[in-house]
Amino acid sequence: MTDQNTRVSFERLRGFIETAMLELGLPPADARGVAELMAQADLQGSEGHGVFRLPQYARRIKAGGVNTKPDIRIIEERAGTALLDGDNGMGHLVMKRAAEIAIEKARACGVAWVGSRFSNHAGPASLYARMPLAHDMIGLYFAVGNANHLPAWGGIDMLVSTNPVAAAFPARNEPPVVLDMATTVAAYGKVKTKAQRGETMPEGWMVDRDGKPLTDPNRSDEGFLLPLGGMEAGYKGFGLALVIGLLAGTLNGAAMGKEVVDFNKDSSSVTNTGQAVMAIDLSAFGAVDAFKARVDVLARDLRGSRRMSGVGKISLPGDNSHAARVRNAREGIPVADALLRELDKIAGELGIAKLVQEISHA
Amino acid sequence: MTDQNTRVSFERLRGFIETAMLELGLPPADARGVAELMAQADLQGSEGHGVFRLPQYARRIKAGGVNTKPDIRIIEERAGTALLDGDNGMGHLVMKRAAEIAIEKARACGVAWVGSRFSNHAGPASLYARMPLAHDMIGLYFAVGNANHLPAWGGIDMLVSTNPVAAAFPARNEPPVVLDMATTVAAYGKVKTKAQRGETMPEGWMVDRDGKPLTDPNRSDEGFLLPLGGMEAGYKGFGLALVIGLLAGTLNGAAMGKEVVDFNKDSSSVTNTGQAVMAIDLSAFGAVDAFKARVDVLARDLRGSRRMSGVGKISLPGDNSHAARVRNAREGIPVADALLRELDKIAGELGIAKLVQEISHA
Repeated sequence: MTDQNTRVSFERLRGFIETAMLELGLPPADARGVAELMAQADLQGSEGHGVFRLPQYARRIKAGGVNTKPDIRIIEERAGTALLDGDNGMGHLVMKRAAEIAIEKARACGVAWVGSRFSNHAGPASLYARMPLAHDMIGLYFAVGNANHLPAWGGIDMLVSTNPVAAAFPARNEPPVVLDMATTVAAYGKVKTKAQRGETMPEGWMVDRDGKPLTDPNRSDEGFLLPLGGMEAGYKGFGLALVIGLLAGTLNGAAMGKEVVDFNKDSSSVTNTGQAVMAIDLSAFGAVDAFKARVDVLARDLRGSRRMSGVGKISLPGDNSHAARVRNAREGIPVADALLRELDKIAGELGIAKLVQEISHA
Repeated sequence: MTDQNTRVSFERLRGFIETAMLELGLPPADARGVAELMAQADLQGSEGHGVFRLPQYARRIKAGGVNTKPDIRIIEERAGTALLDGDNGMGHLVMKRAAEIAIEKARACGVAWVGSRFSNHAGPASLYARMPLAHDMIGLYFAVGNANHLPAWGGIDMLVSTNPVAAAFPARNEPPVVLDMATTVAAYGKVKTKAQRGETMPEGWMVDRDGKPLTDPNRSDEGFLLPLGGMEAGYKGFGLALVIGLLAGTLNGAAMGKEVVDFNKDSSSVTNTGQAVMAIDLSAFGAVDAFKARVDVLARDLRGSRRMSGVGKISLPGDNSHAARVRNAREGIPVADALLRELDKIAGELGIAKLVQEISHA
């Protein structure tokens, strides 16, 4: 199966999503806020977390699984912390609010931690870890995934999700260091992308219930994702997924373990998604410029180090998304044809203009 | 080579280390503080991080590489944060102080983050992540390792250490969940233990500069440790090691990247070790008992889940150290004969009584 792309501008993509969200019932400011973040996800190359999710979001909203008019509010608060009740609104709105509060509180306390309950899927983790960067802060983000894809280490009952973590560090002249990773060898979004493209998965992403490699993405519900570390040291990846789940879910009274709703199979139940944003104000640890200069030196030392044979270039976390952002801003954001057909269907259902009027192949 | 153990009581081990530290020039309260934490490491089965390190610590102290009379002080402070200058004292003392400050500040702000510069190796990460538990807080700990054992992903210049992370969560009736992991497939301490015992390493722990498996622990300086994820997804483990290094080292103005001093080869240079302790006050996120009850339920669901064939028991992070603590408190702490001979040598050099007067093999 060929996998051709059409490139669309950020503004066109953002506008398409905004119009869809308005039709789905979100208030104008919220529709715009969600669209901006979803298009940012695509701009930075997080292809499994941007407009790719629109069909699923639309399905959930139409099924009543997401509240389009949420009252997002603080229900617990200290000088450096807050617990948000997202009122089952779109996760993007809850997490944007969480990041804003974390930034404000970190300015006062040096550090802040804002968690959420009754939130929803919010797109790529790095979007929210990046928000403190502009305020000369380090950002971290933790989330409970919206479907359990792995068992306890040694078990077969799927009780833990791919719980992602993201961390972002500002540099002076270099791009920021931005890690964004699921705690499994592969994120489930990548499995879905493989399925949509009709491709097989490499061995090591998933195993079946007997521990044998599973490479057909359409059979993904017959097995589970391997935690980071694989068969050899996967107990560490499982440990990370558990810890992130305790921080982002259990601490906030959000779903964790068997409470997690599989939003791939269930579009109407409240997911009670838990997430957390942390901000550390650089100025609380000395001169901000000195920190950024140290990050520059470290990044250059790492990128400029000698390479293993066959390695053309050393990349740091965030380099690929930085390059995607630069390229996609200039050339447009690639949208795979299979996805475009899905989006056309959504446009038809909502009675809005298609994202692209005519597909042209380069 | 046989590997016999002698078991000694916690009090005997603690007293032996305390006497050694006194002879090495630490003030009484500091000698006791270090000894208590080192013996706790052995009690919980962190065999590579307790009395096993005494010969190395003694060597560094005698070479002037550690300050035995440090003025550990806060040099930057906000309501929720502090930056400690450890004045090149024993890391255990700096980190104990960091945890105490974090606990105090988290009580006021809900969250606290305390970093260090000019600290030193402090033993197992979990010791400090566990300290907030008794105060109904979650604890996290991050450290820059004291020797670079891995390159950037794709590189061959060793610029990053095995930077460990630990996280501890209190439960109600279940043991706490305590993750303590290096961001490599194996910690370097495990390589040293293998060397001391004359054993080979499994494939996957280390590779040489051509990317080929390295299994002889005595050749460890001819290669590097594989980051968590191994050859397949090691870029994630490298990313984690980098992020932890930025948080524990770069943020604090402590050594990171090429600034890191290899304390296995250099006993006199100041390491400028960076670490960080974080505490989150459970009461800032709702009822403490409700949180602990949720951890109990989650832990029981995970431990009680169905197992893969051949798996006798599902363990959570912290279960093994909990079991070791219970068993070693009752039966004594096992000390391998090879280590005992090293400790006898130290005792002779310092003119103190041996840990065990006569070795008896069970």
